[in-house]
Amino acid sequence: MMSKKPIITMLTDFGENDSYVGCMKGVILSIDSNIKIVDISHNIPSYNMASAAYMLTTYYELFPKGTVHMVVVDPGVGGSREAIAVELNDYYFVLPDNGIATLVINRFAGRYTARRIENPEVMSSNVSSTFHGRDIFAPAAAKLATGFDFNEIGPEHAGTRVIKTVIPQARRGKVEGSVVHIDKFGNYITNINNANLSEINKGALLVSIGGYTIMGLSKTYSEKEPGELIAYVGSTGNVEIGVVKGSAVDVIGLPAGSWVTVRKRGVD
Amino acid sequence: MMSKKPIITMLTDFGENDSYVGCMKGVILSIDSNIKIVDISHNIPSYNMASAAYMLTTYYELFPKGTVHMVVVDPGVGGSREAIAVELNDYYFVLPDNGIATLVINRFAGRYTARRIENPEVMSSNVSSTFHGRDIFAPAAAKLATGFDFNEIGPEHAGTRVIKTVIPQARRGKVEGSVVHIDKFGNYITNINNANLSEINKGALLVSIGGYTIMGLSKTYSEKEPGELIAYVGSTGNVEIGVVKGSAVDVIGLPAGSWVTVRKRGVD
Amino acid sequence: MMSKKPIITMLTDFGENDSYVGCMKGVILSIDSNIKIVDISHNIPSYNMASAAYMLTTYYELFPKGTVHMVVVDPGVGGSREAIAVELNDYYFVLPDNGIATLVINRFAGRYTARRIENPEVMSSNVSSTFHGRDIFAPAAAKLATGFDFNEIGPEHAGTRVIKTVIPQARRGKVEGSVVHIDKFGNYITNINNANLSEINKGALLVSIGGYTIMGLSKTYSEKEPGELIAYVGSTGNVEIGVVKGSAVDVIGLPAGSWVTVRKRGVD
Repeated sequence: MMSKKPIITMLTDFGENDSYVGCMKGVILSIDSNIKIVDISHNIPSYNMASAAYMLTTYYELFPKGTVHMVVVDPGVGGSREAIAVELNDYYFVLPDNGIATLVINRFAGRYTARRIENPEVMSSNVSSTFHGRDIFAPAAAKLATGFDFNEIGPEHAGTRVIKTVIPQARRGKVEGSVVHIDKFGNYITNINNANLSEINKGALLVSIGGYTIMGLSKTYSEKEPGELIAYVGSTGNVEIGVVKGSAVDVIGLPAGSWVTVRKRGVD
Repeated sequence: MMSKKPIITMLTDFGENDSYVGCMKGVILSIDSNIKIVDISHNIPSYNMASAAYMLTTYYELFPKGTVHMVVVDPGVGGSREAIAVELNDYYFVLPDNGIATLVINRFAGRYTARRIENPEVMSSNVSSTFHGRDIFAPAAAKLATGFDFNEIGPEHAGTRVIKTVIPQARRGKVEGSVVHIDKFGNYITNINNANLSEINKGALLVSIGGYTIMGLSKTYSEKEPGELIAYVGSTGNVEIGVVKGSAVDVIGLPAGSWVTVRKRGVD
Repeated sequence: MMSKKPIITMLTDFGENDSYVGCMKGVILSIDSNIKIVDISHNIPSYNMASAAYMLTTYYELFPKGTVHMVVVDPGVGGSREAIAVELNDYYFVLPDNGIATLVINRFAGRYTARRIENPEVMSSNVSSTFHGRDIFAPAAAKLATGFDFNEIGPEHAGTRVIKTVIPQARRGKVEGSVVHIDKFGNYITNINNANLSEINKGALLVSIGGYTIMGLSKTYSEKEPGELIAYVGSTGNVEIGVVKGSAVDVIGLPAGSWVTVRKRGVD
């Protein structure tokens, strides 16, 4: 049995045409060339923190315990937002404190620790004002991945920022949420998950978006005809809206961020 | 000399904006963080099995023996198609049985074994109905890459599906094939390869697509003038159609899937 | 402490829809499966050597000493351009001799060695006329990364090609350069760097592009109002032109390659 490898995952809005991601990888491998770097996606829509917050929930627990998940979607770089590291459920997160961690923290309310990245040992000697991905997040992630003591990263950071709109709201037989992502196949993925559904006592449910209302949650696409709208709990445990052998975004035409409601029949 | 690494390659139609690929990587590294994961492309046109079948032939033999090639282009997920593993020429292939393996199997007729992935030890404990890439193909690939006995994957699977249109047909001095891929530089890549050409006794050949006929196979682009159509055997051993210092798709305008014929002069 | 890993970075114009990059990775891992391959970008605009030359300067020094940087932007493949390896500042570069190395060599004038890749031991046994990335550059890079003697690669190569337009020209209080890249956020990145600025004695400077002239170099975006043009020294040490909370390319509309001048106030 070979020893376990340190792993860092990367989720950014840097795109794939620039060398920004390559620069971060160079910094990481200069700290330890044995670190395994895993690209999740670099195509988060520019500055879309809600999309990043959702995406992070889909993969973080699938990696081995101890993995460092780095997320750099950072419109406030050079401004007053803090750079933080979060420990939660035996995973580490290294990211700007702008709400990206909202959903993972929400699931583990009270059982996480956040620290500000302030120890000079875990950042580059020259920190630019525009590229903290390279100068702060990458070296901090590499240090954590290779055993640097989380408690030495910097002082504890209370009150991490929350993006309220990405947390679904349940009340009297109804959950109000939103579309947090539209995938390649045109499916609307919402922030309403199994836990939210159980609060309203899953049963005869109506799923609404824009002027459309879908009756019931299907188990498989084969329950409806090609071209029909269908709502179902997707592979990430979230309610999704699709079209059988088609694309929901082509039919409904609404952008990510649109409101979605799941309610029991008879509830307004 | 360090020991040899387990390698898994990935070819999918999942695109690069979602976390589907990242989820599969997490599952693989949770089984063994020493596995080397190599992205081939995630931009196969959605559900285009012919394109995936061709692409697989271009790279699989360039990897070390023992490499596991995972291909997830899977319109039938959740339906009746089987999930299979194939052993062939000391390589493994993990994929849905929808014809993706047609061309690699065609080259090794009779000398491959296919097994259905049915052993619960090589899949996730909860298998979703929509994301077998994460729940079946990724764990099965990781198990095979790290030494799990191929014969224990599941029962032998006879009669893997074939996409007939991707196999070129030779008859009396003529080979009929099709465009299986259009590359970034606008070149048409056909499924007609050196072996097919030798069947018609390479010599004075005519290559036809749409209303265009090209005289002879060139060795290098410098044999023709800028702007001229040119046919040649490309780097993968397949007949390609290009334009000197230009783009064949811009000139000819036909999509992938179009018919291409190579025939000896004088043959209809 | 684990041993240091051999690393190869890849920068190409092959895009992400074909298997060209996957083929090169297969060749590398067949030589040694312990090599770590790092994708920088495969989206250099087709055949744009100036863009590749700039990009290379942004990341190469961030990697550990000994890293092999492979760049394949190669319109002259199959023609008379040489395939070369360059040793410089304890890094290796493997690339076609078409000017891609201009800027890294320019920074280390006189302190580099170039050799033609001619030793059959460091290339594939069959070299195609169209895909030297797979048949020459990938195997040569893998050999160098795993300890093959640089001096045995081939004969010394004097007079590597230079792309003159990517080297900024300083004269009497003025530096003339050009836009070498437009990043995802719409920023113009020029080839004028800190060293060039020091030659004209940084102070009250005017930055001009097209019909626009920007007064002074800002330290941070917050020095100007949203929508205003701003010039600054970016994270790579080069002069950049941006728009506060906006996109310079949307405002100015000029393509990469456009001329940029930095001059002292009062100098024509």
